Amino acid sequence: MEVDSYSEPCSKTVHELNNIANRIRINSILSTSKSNSGHPTSSSSCAEILSVLFFRVMKYKVDVPRDLSADRFVMSKGHACPALYAAWVETGHMTQEQLMTLREFGSVYEGHPTPKIDFIDVATGSLGQGLGMAVGMAYVGKYIDKSSYRVFCLLGDGEMAEGAVWEAMAFASYYKLDNLVAIIDVNRLGQSEPTALGHQTDVYRKRAEAFGWNSVEVDGHCVNELSRCFHNAEMCKQQPTCVVAKTMKGKNMVGQENLHGFHGKPVAPASKDEILTYLRGLIGDSGIKLSPGAVVEDTKPVNISNIKLSSPPDYELGKKLATRAGYGKALVKIGQSCDRVYSLDGDMKNSTFAQDYKKAFPDRFIECFIAEQNMVGVGIGMATRDRTVVFISTFAAFLARAYDHIRMGAVCHTNINFFGSHCGISIGADGPSQMALEDIAMFRAVCNSTVLYPSDVVAVERAVELAANTKGICFIRGARAATQVVYTGQTEFKVGGAQVLKQKAGDKVTVVAGGVTLDEALKAYDILQGEGIGITLIDIFSVKPVDKDTILGAAKSTGGRLITVEDHYEEGGIGSAVAEALSGETGIVQKKLAVRGLPYSAAPSELLAAFEIDAAAIVKAVKSMM
Amino acid sequence: MEVDSYSEPCSKTVHELNNIANRIRINSILSTSKSNSGHPTSSSSCAEILSVLFFRVMKYKVDVPRDLSADRFVMSKGHACPALYAAWVETGHMTQEQLMTLREFGSVYEGHPTPKIDFIDVATGSLGQGLGMAVGMAYVGKYIDKSSYRVFCLLGDGEMAEGAVWEAMAFASYYKLDNLVAIIDVNRLGQSEPTALGHQTDVYRKRAEAFGWNSVEVDGHCVNELSRCFHNAEMCKQQPTCVVAKTMKGKNMVGQENLHGFHGKPVAPASKDEILTYLRGLIGDSGIKLSPGAVVEDTKPVNISNIKLSSPPDYELGKKLATRAGYGKALVKIGQSCDRVYSLDGDMKNSTFAQDYKKAFPDRFIECFIAEQNMVGVGIGMATRDRTVVFISTFAAFLARAYDHIRMGAVCHTNINFFGSHCGISIGADGPSQMALEDIAMFRAVCNSTVLYPSDVVAVERAVELAANTKGICFIRGARAATQVVYTGQTEFKVGGAQVLKQKAGDKVTVVAGGVTLDEALKAYDILQGEGIGITLIDIFSVKPVDKDTILGAAKSTGGRLITVEDHYEEGGIGSAVAEALSGETGIVQKKLAVRGLPYSAAPSELLAAFEIDAAAIVKAVKSMM
Repeated sequence: MEVDSYSEPCSKTVHELNNIANRIRINSILSTSKSNSGHPTSSSSCAEILSVLFFRVMKYKVDVPRDLSADRFVMSKGHACPALYAAWVETGHMTQEQLMTLREFGSVYEGHPTPKIDFIDVATGSLGQGLGMAVGMAYVGKYIDKSSYRVFCLLGDGEMAEGAVWEAMAFASYYKLDNLVAIIDVNRLGQSEPTALGHQTDVYRKRAEAFGWNSVEVDGHCVNELSRCFHNAEMCKQQPTCVVAKTMKGKNMVGQENLHGFHGKPVAPASKDEILTYLRGLIGDSGIKLSPGAVVEDTKPVNISNIKLSSPPDYELGKKLATRAGYGKALVKIGQSCDRVYSLDGDMKNSTFAQDYKKAFPDRFIECFIAEQNMVGVGIGMATRDRTVVFISTFAAFLARAYDHIRMGAVCHTNINFFGSHCGISIGADGPSQMALEDIAMFRAVCNSTVLYPSDVVAVERAVELAANTKGICFIRGARAATQVVYTGQTEFKVGGAQVLKQKAGDKVTVVAGGVTLDEALKAYDILQGEGIGITLIDIFSVKPVDKDTILGAAKSTGGRLITVEDHYEEGGIGSAVAEALSGETGIVQKKLAVRGLPYSAAPSELLAAFEIDAAAIVKAVKSMM
Repeated sequence: MEVDSYSEPCSKTVHELNNIANRIRINSILSTSKSNSGHPTSSSSCAEILSVLFFRVMKYKVDVPRDLSADRFVMSKGHACPALYAAWVETGHMTQEQLMTLREFGSVYEGHPTPKIDFIDVATGSLGQGLGMAVGMAYVGKYIDKSSYRVFCLLGDGEMAEGAVWEAMAFASYYKLDNLVAIIDVNRLGQSEPTALGHQTDVYRKRAEAFGWNSVEVDGHCVNELSRCFHNAEMCKQQPTCVVAKTMKGKNMVGQENLHGFHGKPVAPASKDEILTYLRGLIGDSGIKLSPGAVVEDTKPVNISNIKLSSPPDYELGKKLATRAGYGKALVKIGQSCDRVYSLDGDMKNSTFAQDYKKAFPDRFIECFIAEQNMVGVGIGMATRDRTVVFISTFAAFLARAYDHIRMGAVCHTNINFFGSHCGISIGADGPSQMALEDIAMFRAVCNSTVLYPSDVVAVERAVELAANTKGICFIRGARAATQVVYTGQTEFKVGGAQVLKQKAGDKVTVVAGGVTLDEALKAYDILQGEGIGITLIDIFSVKPVDKDTILGAAKSTGGRLITVEDHYEEGGIGSAVAEALSGETGIVQKKLAVRGLPYSAAPSELLAAFEIDAAAIVKAVKSMM
């Protein structure tokens, strides 16, 4: 049995930890009063948790919060950020003046934390997402950096209702992340009423235990109890630790403590003096100044820039192959040139071909099981501080499961990459539940995203290479159906660049297609060619940004006649991207072929015909425009 | 203590239940072999569970599967539907010929179940969603219909990794749904590798217990154990029951049982005879024919058609009010005219104003806590068989959390309504995590959806009334910011109809706006008017379907000059909807004002100005077009 090396904090330390907690409360009140919005009561319940973490437990550098070897802190209950900002004021990293810019135009100290602040790795504020991100950071620490730094995540009790939290709980215990500590701030009160479990800390503990965590109930306002349990967490091996802290919302705030009705409300001017006076009265000279523990410097810098395919794509022109097969190949090739490329998949690796990467680099593949939200959260966490290049794969349809996480990824300034296989009706017999027909719309609407839709295996290899080097969220749309190889290894692809496959003087209509509809458009080209009708054929490749100049130029050359054809619903897809791009132009008439109405199980060719996005439909549309 | 009324099934019954299970296996193999795709091994693991449920436990009418008083069955592991279809063959409701149309063009027996089939209430196939829907159905049974029918939900073990399942588990125990039974088919094997927990049925049981369920481990292939545990489930009061069934994937399939590598694969022709011969050898004459238990006829029909506001909207013109306030009022008004209107909210009711409905009709409000996926699942379940009219509310941004559920809602042919409050940058200081800027794009891309964007409190009341009577998924976009009342109680609104607010001969530009940007456009109108520049001003109201004729007509009257201005990202929003609608027209030049780049905390007016969607930006854009 291990000797318990724990030593109680001395009375001065206890006094000062309590002082810090109450100063955090005071500053949370002052900053939210100044901004006239924010969450002082939610800040107040976690004040001791923060004081103990920041001045007794965590090892970090006050002046270099993003130091590679420093412990990480994720505030999943992002609305309580005034307390976190106040904690950094206590460290000396932030000034009181900076704190008082909370929520102001131009201030990095926003209403919910974002990585604009140097001590924030991931944006929070959509509840239930912080733990998954923390889990990703802990995974990197334990298995990739193999470093001493640890990860702490503070959750609210309200957000424990979010399933994403339980996905993260299951993942963390499965991967034995003993460098991870989750603290649940059980303050009993939600926004509009008490939480479902109130102060039943035993229920949270049992749930965490059932999900494989070392779990303990503590008084969240007792710095002694908190100190001991964090020590025990560090001693616990092969299991993450969950600290279930019973707290009071509005703790030490006269007239508000443990009372409903004060969520998200700055202290009323009439109560402010009394509350502040009481809090100031709790603070006295402790005779000690606390500072963070020293960082163990054992994390090395890494280089994740300029990632290349180890060899150019090499396929036989005209051969039919599914783009998803090219995805697996491409991942392996970039993995050969950069050892920080990681593949995450949600029990679909034999369908997405991420299994090729697992085979080549078993230590750089992470099975996330059927939990897409957590997979994305883990990916975002892994990509923080540029430690890894993350590729996430599953059926494109199931990425919808993680749309809020993806949206928040943009707020996180994350650089993660998605491969969504099995797009559209062309998957055939599995039916509509498995068909991604909203995925382009969904990813296009994400801030600063890139959307690539490779039509053959060459293009998908290049898309993977481009994504690995492109900032922001990149989505690569992949298909189940085999499409013919139309490019050589020498073809150049770029973000924002379409490919003009067929073009000659006298062409009557420009057709813009992608994926399986490019295959159909090539058939239509031959049919029309046989009837003496020339068409210009463009492979869209980059859906966002879209190559407006190429498409507009081609359309103008074909008398303004333009057809878009896609295996996606009409709203927000390729046709929409082109219509948006050309909305400021006149003289172009665009006809949109897209999936209209709910599809069903059938053979791919039957569906392409029934929903009028096949070669016959393209031929018909071309003729109708002439 | 209650007397245990359980009686063991007689030996003939046991024999026949086993016969049925093996016939289900045979038919699952035959149908998937015919379609050359599908999941015979996943079907095989749950064959005894289905035979016991359908021929020993459930009360239903073979000829009227949707009978109001019949027990409900949800197959959350939708890919195993060949087994479910085969069970209905056993009941006599389906023919062998129908079964053999599995996955064929024109057949309702698709690769995953949908409500095209009369014995299916909700589509499944995106894993982890069935339980939430079943929970919604059970809630209706217990608290609304107050009927005897019960709800059974079969889950796969792989999908237990989905957080949505745990959201549903927490909800079901909180609301004491003792008319609900979940069965986990723990067959150990996922698609691409074993599940995280394998055959550790004790872990599943402990998790279910920790989430408040009566929970039991059984041998999922023993019809005796299954019979007893379902009986015990019926006896258990105030708690839902979770049956953790240890099973073998590919049970009784020679060479495949409990082996990896056979997921989603029809039996190979070379193995088929041996497997079928073995299965047929297990079947013998039992001397008994089993039929379902008799339905307790205690559920009454309800009328949810032609729902009206109990009184017309009545507000002072020009007054500034937030549309979310009108939402609460409107809900109460339709609740007064129809007692089957239900409001669901995710601990945001004081922000969305759903609290008004709770106050008026406490029994018709359901607090779903911070678990948006489950809230949507419950809503879909509640709306099945037209039992209720469901309105779901939270911040619009957080509806992204449930996008996959919403997408599947369309596959379910559901008729649920969403109110998403707090759209756009105009919420101000809370920052980007709380700002819905992708919501229009997201909801527009849902099949057969309706998207309404009311600009004042009158319009929102009418939007609620329209949504209550409109099939499919309806999304109403609401705002935190107050906007001026521009309509009277007599103004007529319709799905697909815009409102022309200002129009006169000689107008130079048409401006299409919505919500807060309509307010800004009205200011711009006055400014421009003062400078002698007339503009036509259109309130879009119906974003999907968009009122193409009105917008096109107006734009033509203003020399083809058109501006769209919106508090949404450019991709997929109002500008995109208009550009899509007009893509087939020529002679129109559309300029799009939208949110470009990641927003941040600041005052609403500062953000509207910084992102150039305010009155000044509209004035500037109008002048730039002249």
